[in-house]
Amino acid sequence: MSEIEEKIHAVGLVTEYNPFHDGHIYHIKRAKSITHADAVVAVMSGNFTQRGEPAILDKWQRAQAALENGVDLVVELPVFMAVQPAHRFADGALQLLNDLKVKDVVFGAEHPSWKFSDFVTAEKQFNETTFEKYNATYATQFNQQLVKLTGHSLVDPNDILAFSYYKANLENHYPIILHPIGRLGSQYHDQSITGTIASASAIRQAVNNHEDIRKVAPSRTVESLTGVERIPDWELLYPLLRNFLIQAPLSRLQQIYQMAEGLEYRYREAAEQELTFAGFIHHVKTKRYTYSRLLRVCLYAVMEITNGQMELAWKQPYLHVLGFTERGQEYLHQIKKKVQYPLLTKIGQDERESLIDLDYRAGKLYQMFTQVEQDVKHAPIIK
Amino acid sequence: MSEIEEKIHAVGLVTEYNPFHDGHIYHIKRAKSITHADAVVAVMSGNFTQRGEPAILDKWQRAQAALENGVDLVVELPVFMAVQPAHRFADGALQLLNDLKVKDVVFGAEHPSWKFSDFVTAEKQFNETTFEKYNATYATQFNQQLVKLTGHSLVDPNDILAFSYYKANLENHYPIILHPIGRLGSQYHDQSITGTIASASAIRQAVNNHEDIRKVAPSRTVESLTGVERIPDWELLYPLLRNFLIQAPLSRLQQIYQMAEGLEYRYREAAEQELTFAGFIHHVKTKRYTYSRLLRVCLYAVMEITNGQMELAWKQPYLHVLGFTERGQEYLHQIKKKVQYPLLTKIGQDERESLIDLDYRAGKLYQMFTQVEQDVKHAPIIK
Repeated sequence: MSEIEEKIHAVGLVTEYNPFHDGHIYHIKRAKSITHADAVVAVMSGNFTQRGEPAILDKWQRAQAALENGVDLVVELPVFMAVQPAHRFADGALQLLNDLKVKDVVFGAEHPSWKFSDFVTAEKQFNETTFEKYNATYATQFNQQLVKLTGHSLVDPNDILAFSYYKANLENHYPIILHPIGRLGSQYHDQSITGTIASASAIRQAVNNHEDIRKVAPSRTVESLTGVERIPDWELLYPLLRNFLIQAPLSRLQQIYQMAEGLEYRYREAAEQELTFAGFIHHVKTKRYTYSRLLRVCLYAVMEITNGQMELAWKQPYLHVLGFTERGQEYLHQIKKKVQYPLLTKIGQDERESLIDLDYRAGKLYQMFTQVEQDVKHAPIIK
Repeated sequence: MSEIEEKIHAVGLVTEYNPFHDGHIYHIKRAKSITHADAVVAVMSGNFTQRGEPAILDKWQRAQAALENGVDLVVELPVFMAVQPAHRFADGALQLLNDLKVKDVVFGAEHPSWKFSDFVTAEKQFNETTFEKYNATYATQFNQQLVKLTGHSLVDPNDILAFSYYKANLENHYPIILHPIGRLGSQYHDQSITGTIASASAIRQAVNNHEDIRKVAPSRTVESLTGVERIPDWELLYPLLRNFLIQAPLSRLQQIYQMAEGLEYRYREAAEQELTFAGFIHHVKTKRYTYSRLLRVCLYAVMEITNGQMELAWKQPYLHVLGFTERGQEYLHQIKKKVQYPLLTKIGQDERESLIDLDYRAGKLYQMFTQVEQDVKHAPIIK
């Protein structure tokens, strides 16, 4: 490779931007200053988030805000990678960032000073049999063992993701340098806006309450959310989920990804009895599963994603470019002959029926909220 | 059988009561006077009608109006019999009425003086190969042959049903005496209320237009429809249908009852492109199929009724009693040891998961409109 081809040094970010806010701008700036990168490449969840919820704005709107505020290239994290527990989410994101040839990945963590790689070593000593308790989530049981071995408690969501990035990077022998950084201002779980940096979750709450978000989000986000009466949520999708759970034969429910260990009976029973999604999710909740896990299974069900479809999808990763700046375009030019995975810009009938099938279907579901076509013939945003 | 057991003579009616109106009262009175019957037994479509549409009121509301206005016993025509083309609808209805031991069946026809049994004889001489035109509906092609042989044109909906009753009665050797009678006032297709007898379709239109229906319907119907802003229609169910058509694999669509001859591709394509049901049904329409046929396939699809489920259902008929008067109860007592099919009054978990599965699921779908539970633990109406 010539020196010219290598001229742009990119830093990678794993993002949801749900929605894009000032904390993200801080993160982008810090990522560049720490790594001395020339370009910022963000892998971003599409229309559904890691927690299994519809995003507050569609992927194009969120990509637009990111490109206007420091990101140079936005690539979609496909729904089969995005709507997953932390370890698979992180695994998918690093897989794409590695193929996108980023040198560094910068991410927030509640405890950035921890040596997360030590936790990966510690995990190898875990006793697998103790994960079979049915009255505690996997994460809880995992953490009990980690505390014993390292003295550290891995319970904060960004710490868990940080650990997962280290694990994916080590196990796959990627050459990526990882940089955990501290988070500014509000914590992930904060539900209200207090300072000038708010959590995405607090901003979503504020939008639902028709509160002002101009102090904490850039103008593009504010504009996109102007006039939004009610942010996309599961209540609107519930009739679709409910109908599937009632009408489809049990044998079909049992083929749904992660609809295991009798969940199909709980889901069907709850669907038959509950007229609201709030009632439904409360009905299916047990100590064994987190709400996020249960929400993700709702999405797999309403999209009828089977074990087979999920397995096939992971075998065919791709890079769906949602948008780029001039710098991002130069970077794409630099890497385009080196990437292993198909680099998709415009989605035609072929991709829609093969590679991108699941994202296309997720987009059709998301259309329920916005009536806006998500994929077919949608060109990347050029900023 | 003793004389006492035989004391009540019942006349059977095949009904939809969508909604129950004054024309139905006339029909009931005429049926009794022609046959000198002591009791009126109505087999009635449940929550979805023969045309594949959600009924304007649920089956319990419609049964209530019927029981208050001359009907003594209302038995549900199961969804797999009701949502069918005329010949299967008539076949199912007569099958139940025969098991219910009615002596006579009275029904309206546009041409009650025709000898419908002659048409059944004529049909046997039809040349089957001429039914393979793809640019005309089956009914049109059928009629072209009938005109040639008999000089009569079987195009009016109640004439077609009348023919179907004769055919079912003859072919199954039922001992039922059939009585076609003239229809009063408005015709089936009339869309506005003009006299004191209006068609059900005109009344539905009037309800949607918030017009007064007190002149043409009894108080129970008027009361049930008071405050109804918009009558149940396919638009509300469209997101469910659309999601199924997009998310389910084609192999699954192909298993849906009557989703044949490439309809699965048309349906999927239309679902992907159309955001409204009006747009969808227009998109799938061809000369080959009537709107009714296409609407029925919509219901089969949204309920995921497969060929296998349909076939199984027809092998297990049952008599689901929706309500009765004192006279109706006496009649039930008279026949209960003679009926061949299971006589269901209250639906428990067993029936819901076996026999009545499809009606139960249709009820859950109909719950989208009303939020009212339709079957489980619902006792018959006693008037």
